[in-house]
Amino acid sequence: MTEYPQRRQRVLRDLPEHKADVLIVSGLPNVRYLSGFTGSNALLLLSKSHATLLTDPRYTIQANTESDCTVKIERGSLYEAAAKIFKARRWRSIAFERNRLTFGAYAELQHRLGVAATLRPTSGLVEKHRMIKSGTEIVAIRRSVETNSKAFAQAISRIKPRITEMELAGEIEYRMRKNGAEKPSFETIVASGLRTALPHAQPTVERIHKLLLIDMGCMQAGYASDMTRMLHLGKPGSETRKLYKAVLESQLAAIQVVRPGVKGGDVDRAARRVLKAHGFDKYFVHSTGHGLGLEIHETPRLGKRDATYLEAGMVITIEPGAYIEGVGGVRIEDTVLVTETGCEILTPTPKELTII
Amino acid sequence: MTEYPQRRQRVLRDLPEHKADVLIVSGLPNVRYLSGFTGSNALLLLSKSHATLLTDPRYTIQANTESDCTVKIERGSLYEAAAKIFKARRWRSIAFERNRLTFGAYAELQHRLGVAATLRPTSGLVEKHRMIKSGTEIVAIRRSVETNSKAFAQAISRIKPRITEMELAGEIEYRMRKNGAEKPSFETIVASGLRTALPHAQPTVERIHKLLLIDMGCMQAGYASDMTRMLHLGKPGSETRKLYKAVLESQLAAIQVVRPGVKGGDVDRAARRVLKAHGFDKYFVHSTGHGLGLEIHETPRLGKRDATYLEAGMVITIEPGAYIEGVGGVRIEDTVLVTETGCEILTPTPKELTII
Repeated sequence: MTEYPQRRQRVLRDLPEHKADVLIVSGLPNVRYLSGFTGSNALLLLSKSHATLLTDPRYTIQANTESDCTVKIERGSLYEAAAKIFKARRWRSIAFERNRLTFGAYAELQHRLGVAATLRPTSGLVEKHRMIKSGTEIVAIRRSVETNSKAFAQAISRIKPRITEMELAGEIEYRMRKNGAEKPSFETIVASGLRTALPHAQPTVERIHKLLLIDMGCMQAGYASDMTRMLHLGKPGSETRKLYKAVLESQLAAIQVVRPGVKGGDVDRAARRVLKAHGFDKYFVHSTGHGLGLEIHETPRLGKRDATYLEAGMVITIEPGAYIEGVGGVRIEDTVLVTETGCEILTPTPKELTII
Repeated sequence: MTEYPQRRQRVLRDLPEHKADVLIVSGLPNVRYLSGFTGSNALLLLSKSHATLLTDPRYTIQANTESDCTVKIERGSLYEAAAKIFKARRWRSIAFERNRLTFGAYAELQHRLGVAATLRPTSGLVEKHRMIKSGTEIVAIRRSVETNSKAFAQAISRIKPRITEMELAGEIEYRMRKNGAEKPSFETIVASGLRTALPHAQPTVERIHKLLLIDMGCMQAGYASDMTRMLHLGKPGSETRKLYKAVLESQLAAIQVVRPGVKGGDVDRAARRVLKAHGFDKYFVHSTGHGLGLEIHETPRLGKRDATYLEAGMVITIEPGAYIEGVGGVRIEDTVLVTETGCEILTPTPKELTII
């Protein structure tokens, strides 16, 4: 992969604005994006002249294999090691990722650097580039989405009477793996009956019955997918069908407005407008979608107040829902690529309320 | 579960020492430990008179079901909501978890509170209690460990010729689920051949061959398990057998010293001493173990310099290893309960180098 040096160059362009000699990249997905390293403990130090990856001895071989940066293996605190490097190179203005560093790590850095150095909080320096996916990233996301849909189809074709929510979740995740995924991109949601009204339900040992909500995604080659589909065991009642129809219309309306130049908030409004017409808007208790890539939740967040302009190359979810306590909930979700002229729905799974 | 009020009382005992009116609990496992809430977005505000759980509308039903605290549902920033509560109650001295809060969240709180309030960094206030497991927690960990060992036995009995590392990892995780786990407690490691020399190897599409390292754990009812076992396809060479024997001796020696009053560092030294006698100590590139519970990695960390005294009720892993680039690596790991008189190995899986 030769994209890393280019990506680092792009991020470095913003350093002068922050009057910084170096950026400490501490968010692991950001480290991966800029260096290729996939380990669980790392700091990447980025300056005009250096790209230094700090990690611990468990990752000596892996870091050197995966990354094109200068690898430094440290037995102790990576922050201590970073401070030493800054002192040696006389770097005194140090940018860091404010939302990717704990207060404790910040305080440790400040303590070790002393008064001569200034720590400068930044936000989104890497994430703003990650929003726009490259060709190779889109290929990776497509594969992840396809694996996910394949796993869904295989798992639901294997639903037997009396299967529990947890067993079905296990079957789904097993099929993800079989089709090439590393892991689920979040805890698979399998909720049935009244539990569908919990937007983030954890699977239980209850047998699936009536309405069934499956929200699932996988990680493949590091990239996420995300999809929600609804099924019904037996014939759904008129209330359920009404709710389903409203959410589906809402999802289609939101997808309809996705194109470059439109704001995240506009997409959210389009989804909400349709639900309002059906009288369900007050049951829509989350935002319409989110970006995804190396993480399952990335910017932009398609919420009411989101002012991000969509751009070609963004990959987002569109997932309106309505959750009525004591009745049930419906959510329908696709992964969507913003294109030059509009958008492409990447998720190949049909969207009818599947009756089984 | 009636343990939550007691747990909160125990944590509150330390607040006067920090001259704080309230503690903001932001670490999600800490929130769960003190309130029962398992959602992915929450702050718990603990004072002598109040226990308030802040979360978002996705979790309205769930928070009220799971938690015995006062639930407040917030559509915007939880930090903004917390600051409003502090102002209304005239709480001016506010303790927070320094290693469980991002710098960004800290800065937002400070900004919203203004100069009249003081934010006081604390560390380990909740974690120090979590180190000592209650009876119900030990029962939960035992179940998680048993599920994990059952999944291991079932998965290895299903190993077929030409199975890949990823397929085997998928089989393992499927069996975890089938036996009642929610998910793996970390990314399952299946490494074979020379890749065993990577302590944190990610499974690949390579077919398993020769030496095989499996490091696996699950989460069941929220509690973690962790185990590493080695297998060999065909007869192992003398080098491998020598390495295995040394690591096994090291692991047994470390377990031998586990009892209340011994320091974490003592256990680490016991493991290292044996590896040194075999000439392998320089290949042991991580610490000997770690606590586990609601998280897979908790205090104490059994590293060289760890000064924590072991106490009855702690649950720790003992997992020395040796990793030789170009040759291979061996690690053997059990989950161990510290008892009044010594320790109990919870992991029931035999420790011989299994030949398949």
